[in-house]
This record gives sequence, C-alpha cells and structure tokens, in this order.
Amino acid sequence: MSITIRAPATIANFGPGFDVFGLALEGPCDKVRVRLRGDEIRIKLSGMADGVPVNPPDNTAGLAVINFLKGIGEEGMGVDIAIKKGIRTGAGLGSSGACAAASVHALNKLFGSALTPNRLIEFAMGGEAASGVTHADNVSACSLGGFTIIKNFDPIAVEKVEVPLIPIVICTPLVHLQQRKTAATRRVIPASFSLMDAREQISACSSLVRAMLDEDLIGIGRAVNRDHISEPVRSMFIPGYWEIKGAVLKAGAYGCNISGGAPSIFAIVEKEEQGEIAELMVEGFKQRGIESEPILTKASNRGCE
Amino acid sequence: MSITIRAPATIANFGPGFDVFGLALEGPCDKVRVRLRGDEIRIKLSGMADGVPVNPPDNTAGLAVINFLKGIGEEGMGVDIAIKKGIRTGAGLGSSGACAAASVHALNKLFGSALTPNRLIEFAMGGEAASGVTHADNVSACSLGGFTIIKNFDPIAVEKVEVPLIPIVICTPLVHLQQRKTAATRRVIPASFSLMDAREQISACSSLVRAMLDEDLIGIGRAVNRDHISEPVRSMFIPGYWEIKGAVLKAGAYGCNISGGAPSIFAIVEKEEQGEIAELMVEGFKQRGIESEPILTKASNRGCE
Repeated sequence: MSITIRAPATIANFGPGFDVFGLALEGPCDKVRVRLRGDEIRIKLSGMADGVPVNPPDNTAGLAVINFLKGIGEEGMGVDIAIKKGIRTGAGLGSSGACAAASVHALNKLFGSALTPNRLIEFAMGGEAASGVTHADNVSACSLGGFTIIKNFDPIAVEKVEVPLIPIVICTPLVHLQQRKTAATRRVIPASFSLMDAREQISACSSLVRAMLDEDLIGIGRAVNRDHISEPVRSMFIPGYWEIKGAVLKAGAYGCNISGGAPSIFAIVEKEEQGEIAELMVEGFKQRGIESEPILTKASNRGCE
Repeated sequence: MSITIRAPATIANFGPGFDVFGLALEGPCDKVRVRLRGDEIRIKLSGMADGVPVNPPDNTAGLAVINFLKGIGEEGMGVDIAIKKGIRTGAGLGSSGACAAASVHALNKLFGSALTPNRLIEFAMGGEAASGVTHADNVSACSLGGFTIIKNFDPIAVEKVEVPLIPIVICTPLVHLQQRKTAATRRVIPASFSLMDAREQISACSSLVRAMLDEDLIGIGRAVNRDHISEPVRSMFIPGYWEIKGAVLKAGAYGCNISGGAPSIFAIVEKEEQGEIAELMVEGFKQRGIESEPILTKASNRGCE
C-alpha cells in the first residue's frame, strides 16, 4: 500500500514573525508517495529536483523518515519515498520542509494515524536538519495549512489560524540559489536586538495576529511590512530588494517582504492587481540582469493531505 | 461647566507585551473633575494622593492639560483640575497615566470632542513625562478600555480588543513605593536581547492576542507567564516574587506576572478562586515582613468616561 501526500509551499516568518509565523500557500506543492517495502530507505526524485540529495540521511524527507521510524521503534524498516518536486529548492518557499512534512504525514497514515500533529512537526523538523537548520515555521504551516503560530518551542506546540482570502504574488530571482541555503542567510542575522527593536517587533506581530483574525487585508499588509529581525539583513542577499519593494507598495500592494530564508519576495495584493505586481517584480529584477520566476497564488487553509 | 471623568487602573505590558499591551481594570479608578476658569492651572488633590505633586508641570494631569491647551492653541487658558485618587501611586497600576488620560478626555469634552482617541493618548503621554517616562501602554488601555495593542509608536496608533470576563487578583506590596518609580525599574531592563529571547517574546505575544480574541482564559494565562524582557529584572524589586508566583500557579491561577513598572503583581484566575489567591499573595508578602494590599477585580471594556 502506498500513500501520496501533497505538501504546499509556505512563507516562513511572514514579515515580523521570526521563527514563529508560517503561512501555507495554495501552490506550488510537492507530492510525496511513500510505501513500506524491504529493509532500506530509497528515494526517487522527479520534478524540480536539481541539487536535491538522493541519499536518505542527506535528504530532508529521508531524514524525517529515519526519525519517524526511530521514534516509533521501527528502525530498520524499508521505505520507498518518491518525491515529485513542485517547489523550487533554495528559494525560501519551504521546499525542504514540505518534503519532510509530507513524508512523515504519509508514514503516519500508513501506521494508523496514531501521532499528533505536533509530534509529526517534530519529526519533520528533525528531517529539516539535513538542510542545516531546525526551525518549525515552514513545517508547521505546511503540515496544518493556514496561518500558524509556534506557541511553544520545546516541545513544539503550534496553533493554526484559519486564513481569509489573501491573494499573494511571489517572485523568485533565479540567481545562485544553491548558495542561498537557509543556514547561510540565517547566520547573518544579528545575535542581539535593541529594546526598541524588540517592542517594534512585538507590536508588529501582535497587530498581524489581530488583523489575521479580523480578516483585515490592509492590516495584514501593514504588519507584514514591519520587520526588524530578518528583512534588514536578508535584503542584502537580494539585488534591488528595497527598490522593488518600494515600487510594489507604490503600485498598491498592501505589504511586501522576504519569504523565509530568501531570496523569494512576496506581496499581499488585491486579486485584480496580482498580474501587474508580478510584472513589476520581474521587471525590477530584469533591470538588474536577473531572471526571475513569478507565482500568482493565495493563502490556503489546506496543509499536508 | 465642569466635566468629571472616571479613569481605570491598568496593567501595562500584561506579561510579554513590553510597551505594547495594556489592560483596563474594572477598578480601582481615579476621578478627575475639570473646569475652565480664570487664567491659571490649579490642581486640587484628594483620596490616595500621598506624594502626588500639586504643582501643575510636575503633575501628570497638569502637564497633560498644559500639552492639550498648547496643542489646540489655547495656551494661557485657566483650568481647575480636581483629582480624587483611587489608584495608589507608584504601584505599577497606571496611576499617573490615569490622571493624565482623564484630564485630557475631560478637556476634550469641554472643547466639543474634536480630537481623536489617538491624539488624546499622545497628550496624555506627554503628561506622563512628569513622572519620568513616556510610554503609551497605560494611557492607551485607560483611555479606550479593554485590551489595547500599540500598533504604531510615532505617531501613536492604538487598537482595542474587546475583552471577555477575566477575573484578576492584584496584590501591591506596600514597601518603599516612592522609590519604585517606573523610571527607576525601567532603567534596569537590558538594552539588548538575544535572538532566542526575541522569538520567545514574539511567540508569547502572538499567542496572547490569539487567546484574547478566542476568549481563552487558559491560553491568556499561559501567555501572560512568558516574559523575557520585564519580569526577569523587575522581579528583583519584589521580595519573594518567584516563590509567590509559584504558589499562586500551584493553587490554580492560569497566569501571574508583574503589573507595569512593579511592584504590584497580578494573577488571572477563576472567579471563585479570587479570594484564595489573594490570601496566598498577602501571606507570601507577610512571611517576608511586608504589608500588602489585595484587590479583587476583572478586566473591563470601559475606558475614560
């Protein structure tokens, strides 16, 4: 018997919510098919799988499966993992987290759905360690769908907020994605913050949660624009970021920021403006000699399924 | 014509929301009567007014009135301000903010209610400068009632969240209150924070806003317990704080923390447990040779009125 799970791309941080907020997108998605077989873990890759490791302990899905089997006392069991990558890797769209989340959700189904969502998120996070980071924001949003808040780090506890219709434009500059690993862009974040930055961040995050629960698109956008932790440093990895953000906001977007570990940028817009904003972003990168890929999508309440 | 405004005590920070969150209480309250008369500002004090300055520029209400008149171009106008203090000063219950907020709300009524709530909060904050600090969390909650989130600092913009029934116990240790000025307990807060503290604080604040909107008393209490900014340092000014907090939580309180600039502590409890928790707090201070004053109250959606 095999189980196939669809796992959506996600925007980690979602502006000010460093390591805490995640948002599930309608697409793109990875698809992961899992089957119990033999006594080895084998990975098969297809789709946008350039540079994705096929050796199980180096692959986020493979490592998540190893963790899962260890966790339930079934080490040594064989698993075939067929991954069809729809989410570009190294783009800051939760690609590694999606594979990891999908594979543990599939295994959990095969084993009778005995584990809690928080436990699955922990196994998936363990899998993410293969990509050099362990944080729960991508795998949480990917697992549960909607807007997720990490309410406890150890052990992981996550709550989901149902999202309204939030049209989103994403643009991924296609440069040196291999070097743009999350681990690298994370290291540049300062180890400490001023009291003024801390209260600004608290204010932005609190306003964002309130706006999300009120389904207030303008309030969501405004809060997304306010980040004193990630954006000031990760923007340095994105040529023309501030000019493009400025143009996008001037054209009517409610908010614009960097998705997860960069370099993708995202904007919150009205549905009818998605095309125009996407063009602005692509044009902004083009002026700097950079090819980019736009995605027109929206927030989604669907997680791994 | 005179206008009398009732201004409630408030809990600033409300756990993790440093400088951002405020909660209005049903009581205690200050009452401020304002009348336009002559060409001087005169202050009359009654109630628990020990140590409250009567010289207008040194008094938070007096300074707020001076700011207000200047702001609307009516400098030189005379105002009688009669303040009946129901809120103990120097207790961390927003006493100075309440006088300031009440006086500008009263003046605004006398002048035809032309100013916005955010503008009144700014004038009241200016008044608070007389007590050595300018932050908007107390005056915001006092002005609007309910649970308030500062969503912008400059210019001040505040949003109000309607609160559910939250029974609260407050206990004020009656020691050296004169030395416990907010300005002093604020100086000891570190100027910088680690990345781990920042994400913990973001998580706690976001969870608290969510719990408040969900009217989830347990979630509110849990989030109130999590503060990495104010509690670690201000607790040093409260003898026995951690032991008392431990006992209060063990007895069934959902959350316990320090109110504003200390030394009052507050707990979130079930209504029928208010008496028992209050006794625990008083007993805890008594064991350390400290008299204290308990208050049984609850969150309130009423602000200055």
